[in-house]
Amino acid sequence: MNLRIVRYITGWVIIFEGAFLLFPLITGLCYGEYEICRIFALVIGMCLLVGLLLKGIKKGELGELYIREGFACVSLSWIALAIFGALPFFLSGEIPAFTDAVFEVTSGLTTTGASIMADVESMSKASMFWRCFTHWIGGMGVFVFIMAILPMAGARNINLMKAESPGPSVSKFMPKMKDTAMLLYLIYIVITIVCIASYKLSGMTIYESFTLAFGTVGTGGFGIYNDSMASFTPLQQNLMTFFMIISGINYSVYFCILTGNLKEIFSFEEVRYYLLMIAVSVGLITWNILPLYRSIGVSLRHSAFQVASIITTSGFSTTDFNGWPEFSKGLVVLLMVVGACAGSTGGGLKVSRVLILMKGVGKEIRSIIHPQHVRKLYLDREPLSDEILRTTNAYAAIYAIILIFSVMLIAFDGFDLTTNLTAVLATLNNIGPGLNLVGPTQNFGIYSTFSKCVLIVDMLAGRLELFPILILFLPSCWRKY
Amino acid sequence: MNLRIVRYITGWVIIFEGAFLLFPLITGLCYGEYEICRIFALVIGMCLLVGLLLKGIKKGELGELYIREGFACVSLSWIALAIFGALPFFLSGEIPAFTDAVFEVTSGLTTTGASIMADVESMSKASMFWRCFTHWIGGMGVFVFIMAILPMAGARNINLMKAESPGPSVSKFMPKMKDTAMLLYLIYIVITIVCIASYKLSGMTIYESFTLAFGTVGTGGFGIYNDSMASFTPLQQNLMTFFMIISGINYSVYFCILTGNLKEIFSFEEVRYYLLMIAVSVGLITWNILPLYRSIGVSLRHSAFQVASIITTSGFSTTDFNGWPEFSKGLVVLLMVVGACAGSTGGGLKVSRVLILMKGVGKEIRSIIHPQHVRKLYLDREPLSDEILRTTNAYAAIYAIILIFSVMLIAFDGFDLTTNLTAVLATLNNIGPGLNLVGPTQNFGIYSTFSKCVLIVDMLAGRLELFPILILFLPSCWRKY
Repeated sequence: MNLRIVRYITGWVIIFEGAFLLFPLITGLCYGEYEICRIFALVIGMCLLVGLLLKGIKKGELGELYIREGFACVSLSWIALAIFGALPFFLSGEIPAFTDAVFEVTSGLTTTGASIMADVESMSKASMFWRCFTHWIGGMGVFVFIMAILPMAGARNINLMKAESPGPSVSKFMPKMKDTAMLLYLIYIVITIVCIASYKLSGMTIYESFTLAFGTVGTGGFGIYNDSMASFTPLQQNLMTFFMIISGINYSVYFCILTGNLKEIFSFEEVRYYLLMIAVSVGLITWNILPLYRSIGVSLRHSAFQVASIITTSGFSTTDFNGWPEFSKGLVVLLMVVGACAGSTGGGLKVSRVLILMKGVGKEIRSIIHPQHVRKLYLDREPLSDEILRTTNAYAAIYAIILIFSVMLIAFDGFDLTTNLTAVLATLNNIGPGLNLVGPTQNFGIYSTFSKCVLIVDMLAGRLELFPILILFLPSCWRKY
Repeated sequence: MNLRIVRYITGWVIIFEGAFLLFPLITGLCYGEYEICRIFALVIGMCLLVGLLLKGIKKGELGELYIREGFACVSLSWIALAIFGALPFFLSGEIPAFTDAVFEVTSGLTTTGASIMADVESMSKASMFWRCFTHWIGGMGVFVFIMAILPMAGARNINLMKAESPGPSVSKFMPKMKDTAMLLYLIYIVITIVCIASYKLSGMTIYESFTLAFGTVGTGGFGIYNDSMASFTPLQQNLMTFFMIISGINYSVYFCILTGNLKEIFSFEEVRYYLLMIAVSVGLITWNILPLYRSIGVSLRHSAFQVASIITTSGFSTTDFNGWPEFSKGLVVLLMVVGACAGSTGGGLKVSRVLILMKGVGKEIRSIIHPQHVRKLYLDREPLSDEILRTTNAYAAIYAIILIFSVMLIAFDGFDLTTNLTAVLATLNNIGPGLNLVGPTQNFGIYSTFSKCVLIVDMLAGRLELFPILILFLPSCWRKY
């Protein structure tokens, strides 16, 4: 392990977090919350100091950034982000327990949206802005940002992006990683601006538009009111449904639109299946919950909103889906696991991984009946390599192992299986609400400090796609070359 | 598809079922239950008639038995076994609904042990004997029996055994399939006799010894009393714990003992991990449930019994583990999924499959840190082929798909997630009881006819290891060559 470069990059990440913290500081100044502004200023100072110390001031050779350094950088940086990001909540006393504050910020950064707060409306505007802004920072990822900005030489920077980007493979739109990163951020910012503008036009306040757009485009899910989105108008809810779905699509699609390569769009199998799954689930749930609501219109609106919120792993809610029939709840749990497209801001296993797994299964079954035939598998018209198939299978297995062990660990708190299972699913897939005691009208405050730590690790593992976090625990990762 | 040979073999299976039905008939005669004996005689006649018609009387070329014929034979025969086996219950009115009767017999044959009956003690002795005897028939499998007895030419008979035997690969102890099959049955019969004798010596009646030994050695789990095994003495319960564990071990171990190849025994990694898992789980659960019971002794006895019962997928119970703390219940659910050793009479994913999956995962993680290293995987000191790794991954994926869809389908009945999830786990893994509404003191009678059909398919899919049942649904399986 080349610790020099890990220190250097983690230092930069903490400095950038200090810069990001300027936004809530400005918000606080606008709304006259001077008390909290002093705390934000203090934390910014701490970030700069620690960041500079870690990074080092001397110039010099940083050494190579291999994949294991990439993984270590990313996981250590995210842990640092969560800890420094939690300081404003903790120091201001708005979240008195430090674990709770770290839980809340990890939930924000990983775009989970699970909260330990029973009453979010009591928060200051500046803190709430920071809480929602973490969704936006974590949605695209800090490393994409760093690569877009920092002048770092070497073709191996892709190892950072590999470790942070969701999905079984990293698309390189441009020959240079830096250009790809800048383009991704550009698309991200454009969607965010369009989303903010639409929210404002639909009648939200400036403050609502910004905070909710961060959660929508980053597929986070922190609400700014205690009833999440239930008190907004149908138009505003439908707008959010639309933007959530848009944000769960693989960003390669937007790249194709940008470059005018419209024919290419239809070659994305993943996106086709993603939209198909949304359509089918919305149809089934609308029919299943019809008796609960006044009309098809209302039922359709709630089902579309919840399906979009769950499959994109956002976690906003307009209604308490914990009261839905068991079939709809089962479908919701299934969508939780599948998640959004790779290369989007959403979490979960990712549609493309599920597709790859399904194709692998189909091939095995066919090869039993026709042992002579040798069939190649394709995804997006490209052949699927054995390596991707193998890694995807291993990914699914690790996912199941983490899921099972987390459920066992938090079972010590004594809540029922549905609560524990959906709590882990909701954090590991970066969704937010689960069912029963962690349903949309509840919060994660019920769990013990130990269980909260387990769920924090689950959120990070889910956002960073398991491997980077796992590898930190392997002794051989830390050995010298 | 060569239908001729499928008809021939299915015919023979039905004839053999007729022969097996003589045993409950004799039991009925011994206990003077002449009314029910007439029904058994009637069903035996039907089996012979239908069997002969299907098999055909003319001698002639049967054609080849490829793997797809093997799969079709096995699944169709098991369905036929369940339907004809259900007739005595249905015709005697002891189980009034035909679906319920098929459920009960499928549960018996697949060694599941899930029951739809609230009051089993009201059954006639003959019917109860048949109910328990189905465990014994299904435990080793009808095809192993047929191959041991029937004079069938052709090396391809292994395709029948491949389709019916549990585990990722079929061990051939002897050069000839027929000899392997005979040896397997011999071991099976010896263990059964020892088990019956031990039960008798421990103070059970002859009737109890026989019926319970069938369920123990076949890892079935049908109790003959409403409280399963709770009213038996601690010694009798501990004896059953021992014989359940013995029955969940890969039969290759007993083959090695028979041939005096004692050194070879220690090379079975699967058996080592199986015993290790039992020891660890018993330890954890004993500690976790200690506050519920009077002493460590009682707590140890209950935890050992339930762990053995669940990991071997038997499903007997001495206590209502639905009342245990959440951690112990979670561990029970985990053991449900893992199941017993391959090549035993137990169900579940099988310890060896879990081992193979784990090794695959370990390899992927190491290959991320050390991309240059090429490591070969070993199981039982033999290299693990890529094909077995791939098939095992596909198996796990299909398992997950069937699990998810079954839970969705039975969710329409409106029971809670824990009930539905454990109901599917308990049937797909051939265990018996689940948690909540299908816990050890409850039964599966609560489900609708449709859900019962789903669970019947799950039991068959679990016992026949998914592929044979799945392949029946593929049109290309039925095409002519």
